[in-house]
Amino acid sequence: MWLLLKQGAEPAGLLEELQAEGVSVQAHPIGQRWMLEVIENGYTPEAFLRWEEVERVIAEKPAFPLVATWQGTVNVGSWRRGEAPLWIAGPCSVERKADLLSLALSLRRAGVHALRGGAYKARTSPYAFQGLGEEALDWLAEAKAISGLPLCVEVVSEKHLALYQKKGIDILQVGARNMDNYWLLQEVASLRLPVLLKRNPQARLEEWLLAAEYLLLHGAPWVMLCERGIRTFDYSLRYTLDVGIFSVAAQHTALPVVADPSHAAGRWQHVAALTYAALAAGAEGILVEVHTEPFHARSDAAQQLTLEQFLALKEKADSLHANLHSGGVAQPLQSRLEQ
Amino acid sequence: MWLLLKQGAEPAGLLEELQAEGVSVQAHPIGQRWMLEVIENGYTPEAFLRWEEVERVIAEKPAFPLVATWQGTVNVGSWRRGEAPLWIAGPCSVERKADLLSLALSLRRAGVHALRGGAYKARTSPYAFQGLGEEALDWLAEAKAISGLPLCVEVVSEKHLALYQKKGIDILQVGARNMDNYWLLQEVASLRLPVLLKRNPQARLEEWLLAAEYLLLHGAPWVMLCERGIRTFDYSLRYTLDVGIFSVAAQHTALPVVADPSHAAGRWQHVAALTYAALAAGAEGILVEVHTEPFHARSDAAQQLTLEQFLALKEKADSLHANLHSGGVAQPLQSRLEQ
Amino acid sequence: MWLLLKQGAEPAGLLEELQAEGVSVQAHPIGQRWMLEVIENGYTPEAFLRWEEVERVIAEKPAFPLVATWQGTVNVGSWRRGEAPLWIAGPCSVERKADLLSLALSLRRAGVHALRGGAYKARTSPYAFQGLGEEALDWLAEAKAISGLPLCVEVVSEKHLALYQKKGIDILQVGARNMDNYWLLQEVASLRLPVLLKRNPQARLEEWLLAAEYLLLHGAPWVMLCERGIRTFDYSLRYTLDVGIFSVAAQHTALPVVADPSHAAGRWQHVAALTYAALAAGAEGILVEVHTEPFHARSDAAQQLTLEQFLALKEKADSLHANLHSGGVAQPLQSRLEQ
Amino acid sequence: MWLLLKQGAEPAGLLEELQAEGVSVQAHPIGQRWMLEVIENGYTPEAFLRWEEVERVIAEKPAFPLVATWQGTVNVGSWRRGEAPLWIAGPCSVERKADLLSLALSLRRAGVHALRGGAYKARTSPYAFQGLGEEALDWLAEAKAISGLPLCVEVVSEKHLALYQKKGIDILQVGARNMDNYWLLQEVASLRLPVLLKRNPQARLEEWLLAAEYLLLHGAPWVMLCERGIRTFDYSLRYTLDVGIFSVAAQHTALPVVADPSHAAGRWQHVAALTYAALAAGAEGILVEVHTEPFHARSDAAQQLTLEQFLALKEKADSLHANLHSGGVAQPLQSRLEQ
Repeated sequence: MWLLLKQGAEPAGLLEELQAEGVSVQAHPIGQRWMLEVIENGYTPEAFLRWEEVERVIAEKPAFPLVATWQGTVNVGSWRRGEAPLWIAGPCSVERKADLLSLALSLRRAGVHALRGGAYKARTSPYAFQGLGEEALDWLAEAKAISGLPLCVEVVSEKHLALYQKKGIDILQVGARNMDNYWLLQEVASLRLPVLLKRNPQARLEEWLLAAEYLLLHGAPWVMLCERGIRTFDYSLRYTLDVGIFSVAAQHTALPVVADPSHAAGRWQHVAALTYAALAAGAEGILVEVHTEPFHARSDAAQQLTLEQFLALKEKADSLHANLHSGGVAQPLQSRLEQ
Repeated sequence: MWLLLKQGAEPAGLLEELQAEGVSVQAHPIGQRWMLEVIENGYTPEAFLRWEEVERVIAEKPAFPLVATWQGTVNVGSWRRGEAPLWIAGPCSVERKADLLSLALSLRRAGVHALRGGAYKARTSPYAFQGLGEEALDWLAEAKAISGLPLCVEVVSEKHLALYQKKGIDILQVGARNMDNYWLLQEVASLRLPVLLKRNPQARLEEWLLAAEYLLLHGAPWVMLCERGIRTFDYSLRYTLDVGIFSVAAQHTALPVVADPSHAAGRWQHVAALTYAALAAGAEGILVEVHTEPFHARSDAAQQLTLEQFLALKEKADSLHANLHSGGVAQPLQSRLEQ
Repeated sequence: MWLLLKQGAEPAGLLEELQAEGVSVQAHPIGQRWMLEVIENGYTPEAFLRWEEVERVIAEKPAFPLVATWQGTVNVGSWRRGEAPLWIAGPCSVERKADLLSLALSLRRAGVHALRGGAYKARTSPYAFQGLGEEALDWLAEAKAISGLPLCVEVVSEKHLALYQKKGIDILQVGARNMDNYWLLQEVASLRLPVLLKRNPQARLEEWLLAAEYLLLHGAPWVMLCERGIRTFDYSLRYTLDVGIFSVAAQHTALPVVADPSHAAGRWQHVAALTYAALAAGAEGILVEVHTEPFHARSDAAQQLTLEQFLALKEKADSLHANLHSGGVAQPLQSRLEQ
Repeated sequence: MWLLLKQGAEPAGLLEELQAEGVSVQAHPIGQRWMLEVIENGYTPEAFLRWEEVERVIAEKPAFPLVATWQGTVNVGSWRRGEAPLWIAGPCSVERKADLLSLALSLRRAGVHALRGGAYKARTSPYAFQGLGEEALDWLAEAKAISGLPLCVEVVSEKHLALYQKKGIDILQVGARNMDNYWLLQEVASLRLPVLLKRNPQARLEEWLLAAEYLLLHGAPWVMLCERGIRTFDYSLRYTLDVGIFSVAAQHTALPVVADPSHAAGRWQHVAALTYAALAAGAEGILVEVHTEPFHARSDAAQQLTLEQFLALKEKADSLHANLHSGGVAQPLQSRLEQ
């Protein structure tokens, strides 16, 4: 049995008391908190709740205790969790300053909550466009200044972290390719900023949540999990969006889980269908690529939406989300208690 | 270039006329119709449309011409295609007569369009319950008589086909395990009944559509395609529901495509999320397992819904579908013309 | 605890004796034999071995008891199990009589143990060549008569079974597409002939062994398991040959496991590499497609070997197998007892 | 058409000459060399070979030109490429100095060519042992000094690179999790040391070769590709060793390709079978985990071999390799020219 202590609670006094009662117990630091491991004893789980320091009694130590017990606030611009879908939109790569600024203003007007945009890219080919780097970060900072939108930008190397901090990036994105790059995760977390953690296309749920555990353990206040399609035998679309993961993940963590329909679809024609599906299946938000002129984009040209397409999509998706959550029961058959 | 002739049109006269114009051409029977293969000539595709017998000019012969060009009517009880989701519900296996009859009446009252139920089962273990066989078919026929619901029942062996016909089964279901059992497909199609064709969990779209082509070629009037989850590296749920396939399939065929969330989920808690996701992604209907007492079911006990759960699910799903299709534009970004 | 009785042993007397000793016990028929389920009692497993009827004591009833406990003889022509690889070779489809007869004689001369050849084919497209049917079976029977080679032919429909029996087919092949077509398996098994059971490209080991259990339970004297490549995200070759399955399967059953490198490779250039790999990993034999003129083959033209290529391959492979098994220790690190 | 110029050849003179002949041509730097793109002209490919600067004429520019055209020497200790398998062995993690030194000497005596050992580990859980870091590197350097074995050590962060250089690591290993961490690849390559590049368990061949292209482009003299199992639906073993990739990769590059049977197997009992299979399928070498006391290992305890097990394995594997390559024709059916 495991006792998760409350934030700030110290174990020393409790250990003494428990030992005095004949309970064999050991303390383990878990991130900023403590967990006490109770070795075989005569008490029921409930009995331990009479000690004030104990927040929760857990039958088995979860592989990812911080992720499993996380309870906090998620701040992304004007988004109110639970009320409407979260929207994070913007171009795959930042390419031209004027386009970015005008797009940021349009997105803000459309009710988007955060701006995404690539500065340093992770490209499969070394001969592909690798991003504009620091210049792109400068333009993003300017876009933030004029639109008020917080910034969500992918980090591809620990070398860039100081720069990201200096330029005021609000949410650090860890891409699918770096989800299990644990040494980068530790560096990213040390900035104590929120992190958007994409699922590696081959990651099982536990592997994904363990990557989030690295982030919480090393200082990230919260992590937004982002499903972006898994690799399967089927290449009808670029990847297979795993919509089942939204309700399964919700049984294991209270961290928000969003979807990236752009990378799963690979072609703009299918982005809408995947967006609706993800929200209907329980995704809390959408990370989507929007570009002023997709056909001239220097990366992911086939999958980015025009602003007009995005606006139509968002309207329909917001309405669908409201419809699903009316009556207060979005997922009537599922419960956090049962599996 | 290929000319698909209209239903009932004979090629002889057209062949003569075309040859008189110097066009080198050859006729191929495709199911009940004819396709003319035009070998290199001076005409544009549109030119051939002035012959009345020609329904469509196709640049390249599709691998599945009947599936690609199918245009017909789908009749399942009171369902009106395009207006609301199709609902096919019922127990995994038929187990007790009284339960089945009462369930059929309840489902009819709830607006379900067809009754499903297993008579002969395909079970992974030879020691598992294999279905009640002919007795179950008798009870299903009785349920149809009192409820008016058409019947959709899985066929597992060509030996049973005469029996299915005699008992008045309306839609023959070919299970995922038999999708590529081509000799069974031919026998099934020869009954000239509609067929619900589940996707094999490892089938690529083309393989699935080719299986449907077997059915149309050998006599089935129409085929309903049913996505029920694919096999991937991820076992968070029993299978991974491939929601992207709905909009991709719609680019290749006008045959209806529905979803089976029960087999994809494997656990009842996740059936609702997958149902909403499938409809939001473009599925036209839902095939779902409903049982009077799921926990006592002799097969698939973990994934069947109670009647109450089903009613709540259907209400929410119908509302979501109506919301998505209001304004007449369900999938604003996707078109049948572009890929 | 489970007691597997010897072939022919009746449970009645034993049940009485055990009950007299205070052991609570129940008898279950397993194919042609009996298993006794021992409910909690004071005896050690070894204690039950003093009853002569008991062949083996099993801690937990395996999901596939007949497969797990099978111990018998495998007869395929002149092959001696354990001494050299088993070779089953021949064309994908039987196409011309003269070619087949001459090929059969050449294969016999080369030391091949059985002749394979397709009569009724399972083709992905309904427009592809479907096999010559009964005529092909006649030619195969003639090839057997002149070469002395036993025949291994795929069954695609229960309707053909009587014909297969009449024509003297020795080993009934169940193709990958029919591995989990359980009603066909039962019909096939009822002929009481040995069966070569291909693994479905998406089947997990347990599913494969359960399909073999269907066969043993319904009358097949033995089953030869055949790995032919699984479906993965990687299409460098047609399928991914799962070489790890040979040593894992050997931990669960004494049934022979062979490989089909032709279907896994999909291109003749890679057949040799996969053959060597399969034998090195523990496959007991090879099922390979050989054609007199591969480039004119009406099915699988890209993957069939010429006779010359096959002879070179077999020589190298036999030598490799002998090298691996010299010193009596083929797989020094693996044991049937440990997992 | 593309002309690959020889190492050191400058394009200026050739450009002039070609333009004088009316050939429209453009020069592109590819790593340390030049490629000339020839736009439509009247010459046959062979014609361009009369210019001395041209090493090779390529019909289409490959996605990975440096990998496709690489021709160099691979030096790993006493290994002579083509004559025997390459052996790189050692513990998963370096844990105790005395054990490492004694193991290094034993491995050297056994004919191993390089020593592997983990200093900084990439572990799925943040609570798992993360490696001894710099201390481990020191012990490795000492093991190299006394045994003469070159060192192959995994790099998990660009921060450690200077340290790796200082400690004299000979081959930098990029783990499966970092294969597509392109910014790390660039940093690693900048040390101008050879790199062992593991295949990401979800990478297709082209993605793997493009990662190698990053390394060659940014300064690595050569790259050793290492297949270590792919992720599939099947978990009989930890991963599925893709043995087909060895002969396919050889059609695209002359870079050496080796196998890591330890990570694919996940359990020591299956390491031998996978080792034999990999070599038989064309792998040029084996990277294998050997530990003085596997059951006490702090990582990968289930899959490491004891020294005794390794010695038996190596003897058998070397003999098998010699047998396969006797007569000079290892893979009689496969050619670098055809696909």
